[in-house]
Amino acid sequence: MSALPPEVQLAVQALLTAYCAAIDRRADAYEAAAYFADDGVLDNTALGSPLVQGRTALIEAIGGVFSTMAGLEHYLTNFMVTECSGDVVQAQAYVQAHGRPVAGEAFSMRGIYRLEGRRKGAAWQIERLTFQPFP
Amino acid sequence: MSALPPEVQLAVQALLTAYCAAIDRRADAYEAAAYFADDGVLDNTALGSPLVQGRTALIEAIGGVFSTMAGLEHYLTNFMVTECSGDVVQAQAYVQAHGRPVAGEAFSMRGIYRLEGRRKGAAWQIERLTFQPFP
Amino acid sequence: MSALPPEVQLAVQALLTAYCAAIDRRADAYEAAAYFADDGVLDNTALGSPLVQGRTALIEAIGGVFSTMAGLEHYLTNFMVTECSGDVVQAQAYVQAHGRPVAGEAFSMRGIYRLEGRRKGAAWQIERLTFQPFP
Repeated sequence: MSALPPEVQLAVQALLTAYCAAIDRRADAYEAAAYFADDGVLDNTALGSPLVQGRTALIEAIGGVFSTMAGLEHYLTNFMVTECSGDVVQAQAYVQAHGRPVAGEAFSMRGIYRLEGRRKGAAWQIERLTFQPFP
Repeated sequence: MSALPPEVQLAVQALLTAYCAAIDRRADAYEAAAYFADDGVLDNTALGSPLVQGRTALIEAIGGVFSTMAGLEHYLTNFMVTECSGDVVQAQAYVQAHGRPVAGEAFSMRGIYRLEGRRKGAAWQIERLTFQPFP
Repeated sequence: MSALPPEVQLAVQALLTAYCAAIDRRADAYEAAAYFADDGVLDNTALGSPLVQGRTALIEAIGGVFSTMAGLEHYLTNFMVTECSGDVVQAQAYVQAHGRPVAGEAFSMRGIYRLEGRRKGAAWQIERLTFQPFP
């Protein structure tokens, strides 16, 4: 991976960080979904959530989360690009997440985000984001 | 933000990381305050602390923290440059902090550091550092 | 440190991140030990572990950890290169670690990894990795 250009690594890391910032602001589901490609996939099936695919479904799913959560925090660490060829990149990061529902008890999760990204023009987009809890 | 040079992003991240390392060492208030500009501002008003402005006031305030704390840890994640124009930068990071007072009970906090930085010669300095707790 | 090339900083950070990923996968002690130099040193003496030196001893020690642990997570933050001259680098990172033994209770630790790295060809290797718990 030593040949990975620094600007690519930092751009993909910035993509995931900006997406999590939009999620944690809980303000605008359109803005958060815009970090995905048109047919992007959010895979939280390990948490029992249905697979979400496509911009419209993403906006709806993220909006649903925003309406039920009074607090969200996603702490990203251990960012690592695991594959990069041309305009496609595979990366991962550890995540410690804290959630506080509008109704119900606060919870915490720890796991790995696996990210497939694709360059589109000057920007990078999420093709697929999968959460894998630590066992 | 794709045009942000990697060396600028890493330098501003290194500035905040080095400042927190100096705080967590609790050894030298002059060293910690030196990461600020001459008229730099530390805004922990969200925690009930008075606004601290200027090198002399910063040294005094930081020295006061050092004399009352037996342990400090600031875990920085989710670093993101949100604006950059010339020699001025706006950035943020998530922070999970743990404190252990000389007298009293240990505590933890989670929130966002908002950083205004300015390039001064080859180095970057903190113009303003604001802590905003997660709700 | 402003003259440190971004690709060096990112490569050394990637070295520590990849090593921790290999440790946390608990799958292959050879793979994890391969991030060390031939005569590399793992210094967890602050935890009461004996000093481990050399590839063979590292494989054995890491394999021993894998056989007793059912879960390992090392969250790395606050990465900082503190010295860099030619092909040798000193760096540090904060680490929050969680362990779940096969038998016994889960535990957590917080501290600083101090890393001595050396460039070998296109790659970087760990010369010495020392864990220093926060007081």
